[in-house]
Amino acid sequence: MKTGKFIVIEGLEGAGKSTALEVVVDTLQQFGIKDVVFTREPGGTPLAEKLRHLIKHEVEEPVTDKAELLMLYAARIQLVENVIKPALAQGKWVVGDRHDLSSQAYQGGGRGLDQNLMATLKSAVLGEFKPDFTLYLDVDAEIGLARARGRGALDRIEQQNLDFFHRTRARYLQLVQQDPQAVLINAEQSIELVSEDIRQAVQKFIEENA
Amino acid sequence: MKTGKFIVIEGLEGAGKSTALEVVVDTLQQFGIKDVVFTREPGGTPLAEKLRHLIKHEVEEPVTDKAELLMLYAARIQLVENVIKPALAQGKWVVGDRHDLSSQAYQGGGRGLDQNLMATLKSAVLGEFKPDFTLYLDVDAEIGLARARGRGALDRIEQQNLDFFHRTRARYLQLVQQDPQAVLINAEQSIELVSEDIRQAVQKFIEENA
Repeated sequence: MKTGKFIVIEGLEGAGKSTALEVVVDTLQQFGIKDVVFTREPGGTPLAEKLRHLIKHEVEEPVTDKAELLMLYAARIQLVENVIKPALAQGKWVVGDRHDLSSQAYQGGGRGLDQNLMATLKSAVLGEFKPDFTLYLDVDAEIGLARARGRGALDRIEQQNLDFFHRTRARYLQLVQQDPQAVLINAEQSIELVSEDIRQAVQKFIEENA
Repeated sequence: MKTGKFIVIEGLEGAGKSTALEVVVDTLQQFGIKDVVFTREPGGTPLAEKLRHLIKHEVEEPVTDKAELLMLYAARIQLVENVIKPALAQGKWVVGDRHDLSSQAYQGGGRGLDQNLMATLKSAVLGEFKPDFTLYLDVDAEIGLARARGRGALDRIEQQNLDFFHRTRARYLQLVQQDPQAVLINAEQSIELVSEDIRQAVQKFIEENA
């Protein structure tokens, strides 16, 4: 049986990932791809969801940047081994709300963690595994944060200062430019234009890969 | 102010770590070292204790070996940064029930995780930080497990098969031989002889270092 594909949606808070997810699924369905598995990171398995809670809501003590990164990778390898790889092997497509690029951007860029640590962890934990296609929703940090704040209370990572998100976006832009399997979507446009750009990008990917 | 020292007690389940801890503390007190901080791993901080619970008692899904290792290091760096280093800096001595050598033995030896991953994580997460003195309580795996089973229900790691603990002990022995700051205690002797060996080893360490 043909294996499925792993499509990931990436971007800052308030970039519009939830809307993008709907557009991706609609487009897949239009092409007859109906057996789709959704994932979110950190999370998506029982253990990974417990780690997600610790990562986002630990308040009893300061969380070191390294512990945050290690918990993210612990959650990620559980999701990859126990959910994503089995689904792909069964021919299902997987659509992920965030994946490794988020760690590269937030922890590598935003937190400024050592690049050797970032590269080593990625390669030692994930090996060659990576998304088949990444949609990066690019939005200015101030615009994204204003949208995210409008949604309610922010978690531990969302409460970082604006500089953190500027560094995160800069790392996103740098890595997306280097990745031939990633597409940048201008997420500062109207929702209609953003949706249309996503639809076209996904359609192109399906036509070339399905 | 003089910084404190970090003494770690290591060994298989049933090796007698709890008894050893009492002997170490008694010996320190005899030499006037009374301001002692105790740690256990995984655990010892609010977040690390939550991770300890996930590591030992996750039952909703299979825990991958890599996720287990990453959670152990997340817990360890929280303990090192938020508890051990501050205590040492205040001149306190720290006595730890397990530290990094346990991961090297159980996950590196028992689980057989890639040595490059083990070495890289250790160095990337802990840097140059390591115990000043390690007491390794050496016991045959069958003897240790029989003692541990006598204590009641075993956790997820303690439920591994005997071969796992043979590999773990072999890695312990290999690493302790290479470490000039580690001492092997024959923990198959009577409790009186084990206690006396520990007392003498700690006394020697204090006389040379305090």
